Amino acid sequence: MFDPAAYHRLTTRFARIATVSEAGAMLGWDAAAVMPPGGAPARGDQLAVLAGVAHSLLTAPEVGDDLAAAGVPDDPWVAANLRLMRHEHARATALPAHLVEAEARVNSACEKVWRAARADNDFARVAPSLEEVLTLVRQRAQALGEQLGMSPYDALMDLNQPGMLTAELEPLFDRYEAFLAEALPRAEAKQKRSPPPIRLAGQFPAETQEKLCRRIAERAGLDFTHARLDRSLHPFCGGTPSDVRITMRYDESDPVQALMAVLHETGHALYERGLPEVWSRQPVGQASGMAAHESQSLIMEMQACRSDAFMGWLSNELVASFKDIGSAGPAWAPANLARLWRRVERGFIRVDADEMTYPAHVIMRFRLERAMVAGDLAVRDLPGAWADEMKRLLGIVPPNDTRGCLQDIHWYEGMFGYFPAYTLGAMAAAQLMAAARGTVPHMDRCLARGDLAPLGAWLRAHVHAHGSRLDFNELLVEATGWKLDPSAFEQHLTARYLA
Amino acid sequence: MFDPAAYHRLTTRFARIATVSEAGAMLGWDAAAVMPPGGAPARGDQLAVLAGVAHSLLTAPEVGDDLAAAGVPDDPWVAANLRLMRHEHARATALPAHLVEAEARVNSACEKVWRAARADNDFARVAPSLEEVLTLVRQRAQALGEQLGMSPYDALMDLNQPGMLTAELEPLFDRYEAFLAEALPRAEAKQKRSPPPIRLAGQFPAETQEKLCRRIAERAGLDFTHARLDRSLHPFCGGTPSDVRITMRYDESDPVQALMAVLHETGHALYERGLPEVWSRQPVGQASGMAAHESQSLIMEMQACRSDAFMGWLSNELVASFKDIGSAGPAWAPANLARLWRRVERGFIRVDADEMTYPAHVIMRFRLERAMVAGDLAVRDLPGAWADEMKRLLGIVPPNDTRGCLQDIHWYEGMFGYFPAYTLGAMAAAQLMAAARGTVPHMDRCLARGDLAPLGAWLRAHVHAHGSRLDFNELLVEATGWKLDPSAFEQHLTARYLA
Repeated sequence: MFDPAAYHRLTTRFARIATVSEAGAMLGWDAAAVMPPGGAPARGDQLAVLAGVAHSLLTAPEVGDDLAAAGVPDDPWVAANLRLMRHEHARATALPAHLVEAEARVNSACEKVWRAARADNDFARVAPSLEEVLTLVRQRAQALGEQLGMSPYDALMDLNQPGMLTAELEPLFDRYEAFLAEALPRAEAKQKRSPPPIRLAGQFPAETQEKLCRRIAERAGLDFTHARLDRSLHPFCGGTPSDVRITMRYDESDPVQALMAVLHETGHALYERGLPEVWSRQPVGQASGMAAHESQSLIMEMQACRSDAFMGWLSNELVASFKDIGSAGPAWAPANLARLWRRVERGFIRVDADEMTYPAHVIMRFRLERAMVAGDLAVRDLPGAWADEMKRLLGIVPPNDTRGCLQDIHWYEGMFGYFPAYTLGAMAAAQLMAAARGTVPHMDRCLARGDLAPLGAWLRAHVHAHGSRLDFNELLVEATGWKLDPSAFEQHLTARYLA
Repeated sequence: MFDPAAYHRLTTRFARIATVSEAGAMLGWDAAAVMPPGGAPARGDQLAVLAGVAHSLLTAPEVGDDLAAAGVPDDPWVAANLRLMRHEHARATALPAHLVEAEARVNSACEKVWRAARADNDFARVAPSLEEVLTLVRQRAQALGEQLGMSPYDALMDLNQPGMLTAELEPLFDRYEAFLAEALPRAEAKQKRSPPPIRLAGQFPAETQEKLCRRIAERAGLDFTHARLDRSLHPFCGGTPSDVRITMRYDESDPVQALMAVLHETGHALYERGLPEVWSRQPVGQASGMAAHESQSLIMEMQACRSDAFMGWLSNELVASFKDIGSAGPAWAPANLARLWRRVERGFIRVDADEMTYPAHVIMRFRLERAMVAGDLAVRDLPGAWADEMKRLLGIVPPNDTRGCLQDIHWYEGMFGYFPAYTLGAMAAAQLMAAARGTVPHMDRCLARGDLAPLGAWLRAHVHAHGSRLDFNELLVEATGWKLDPSAFEQHLTARYLA
């Protein structure tokens, strides 16, 4: 039984909700990229009101009625769309309005304290705020878990990587821990046998870097009639599918980082651009969660563009861009650039980590936040627990909290259950690349001439075009034949760092 | 009898509405200043949905109840706020939702056709779209007029210059027509007796012009922690009071225009910045209509900055900015720059018109749009009527429609009843300047050193700080002692162009 009239009312409403959210996405970009500082308080209100409007539209009483009346359609896209509508509605109605508003207030206050606490290496100052945040997060997790029939922590993760539960994640992460314990020392030993990388010395104007980044993004398939490239403190990909906004940051003493960052963000952007237009603004037309999204940025950055083949081409581009300021000498040799771009290193900072140690940063955060949400780890004990986990996974202990549990914004703005997406994405990227290599002829030959079009076409067909009709694991089954299987990622790391 | 609870609910709701409108204002700026072209369709939807959300909030049934219950407060600000709420509510409830949505769609479609039609000088192509626009405008005018107890055309004007009716405008405009018939030939004759202005020759990089414009805007009192200066096809002032967005266009073969344009937009921006913060997001905290707004841009551009005193300072700034590319010679002499900045000329294009002939462009549009709204002028007859009016007022006939009735966007995006604001603003600016000169000591001495602060302070106190507690004429009475009186404007023109 399917009621087309009820379904039609729902699609109209969800399109409206999505359109309001698009407005919010654009204002978020504006705040990060161009807004004068004096605009911040008003912008906070604007974003809160838009979120409130979207929430009201989603939780209006007639939505529940229509969702019940709509029944079960035959068409798989329509069925998936309805399923996702019901899921979003269930999530939204699980939370009382006062909790949503309290979280907005408390999270935004905590984030401010955190900025100062991080700058001053003063965890004690932000601990009370984080306790408040955590109290509300636990209430949210509890309410969502009851509504969705999941554990509280799984209910938090469900937003970011729908379909992935703790029970599936834990063995994946345990396995990676074991892999890393063996692989990391070997990679370090191998690295020691090759010459140390030489940093590029000089002054590299942001304008020149930006031009190069733009060309690279275009080359990777981004169409700038539907995109912008700007600057912000933290690079990100925002905007909407028909108007994607990438931002970058340029270090004028180091032109190497931005190139990989722009390829990363371009991977995100291409996912948005490749979503099925006919389902735009419907739940099923969105990207399939953050883990899937991260797989698209990482397949671009880590799999395709840090490959031997592509790096040869990229080195030439880099050398050509800076030839006016003397891009010659041993530092500019492709082999040295490869060593700069593919260096394994035990470090304290997640966002600076290489692809082999990055999962360790994620795994420890996953364990710590699970324990906090479960009530097994008190906020005051976080710095100690952080040091213990770091020691266990990477054998190092951060010298202070600024480089430890104060480094990431996530928890301090109420984001729990997000971190796993990074590593799920990295593993999925390797699995997808292996599958793409099995289908796309001469992949390396294409990469060697900087041609990402064949890979892009494969991703569009096998990932982007599905929107969120399939969840993370279903998407992988469809594209690669298997659910998430970490062996592709391990093989990739082994080939790149141990062979 | 005053019900504070009902009033409190209303202020909360109107703040929410204003916040949604702020989001729309920001997205409007984005569309004009930075959006990639591919984002346009989605942006249109976003703006339409936000407008719809604001409209729903304003027309919800409980608003009428609360407005009725709120009664009559003692405080004049609260009373004015309630009066404006009731007025906005009356305007909004006069219009059925389907009309609002149809206008959004039809206007946006017509605007697109107009762009092509104007480029190709093909009025016939856009005429059917304009008919559709006009049909809906007339429905709106009819509905608004019935609700507000005004004629349809007055109901359209009411949005832009509340309190100014056709009955008051017509004699003002007739009087100006008579003044112009006598003054224009005299001004031309006088102009002929002085040497013709020499255009500045050279290439003037947009970046240098932008830097100068930014400095001038800052000098005029604009605080860039609450503002931005960007570029767009048509200069405008958008954004919100705490985050004003000015845009400019730079002609690299002529650095003279941008300087006046930036002062114009800065006048608008300072009005927004000077609105009473304690009433922000309330109706009474907004600017008092578009005529008042235009008075603020024109007092800056025409009254203060085209004065002999200020132009001396401005010429020095201009010469200093371009000294690297040879800003010397007779063209750069202050007297020549004054002749460039204050040239009277019968022309076809409104936005290029000088301050003496500009009202003629407005008067003819006022007459034509009134006739169209009344049903006395058919769209197909517009080009002919345009030529007739132009001939009568300025004695010239446009060579084609691109330079005639296709030149302005207003009608093609459904904006009728707006044009009078420009001339009301010009007249008010002269009246305000005369009053300011009567109070601010040594105004010319300040202007001669580029010091606009005393004038700015006077405007803040006598215009900006009133928000829209006073309507256009009340504001003038408060600030100058009189309702709008065109004699100050005539005296100003006489002194500047005929003496």
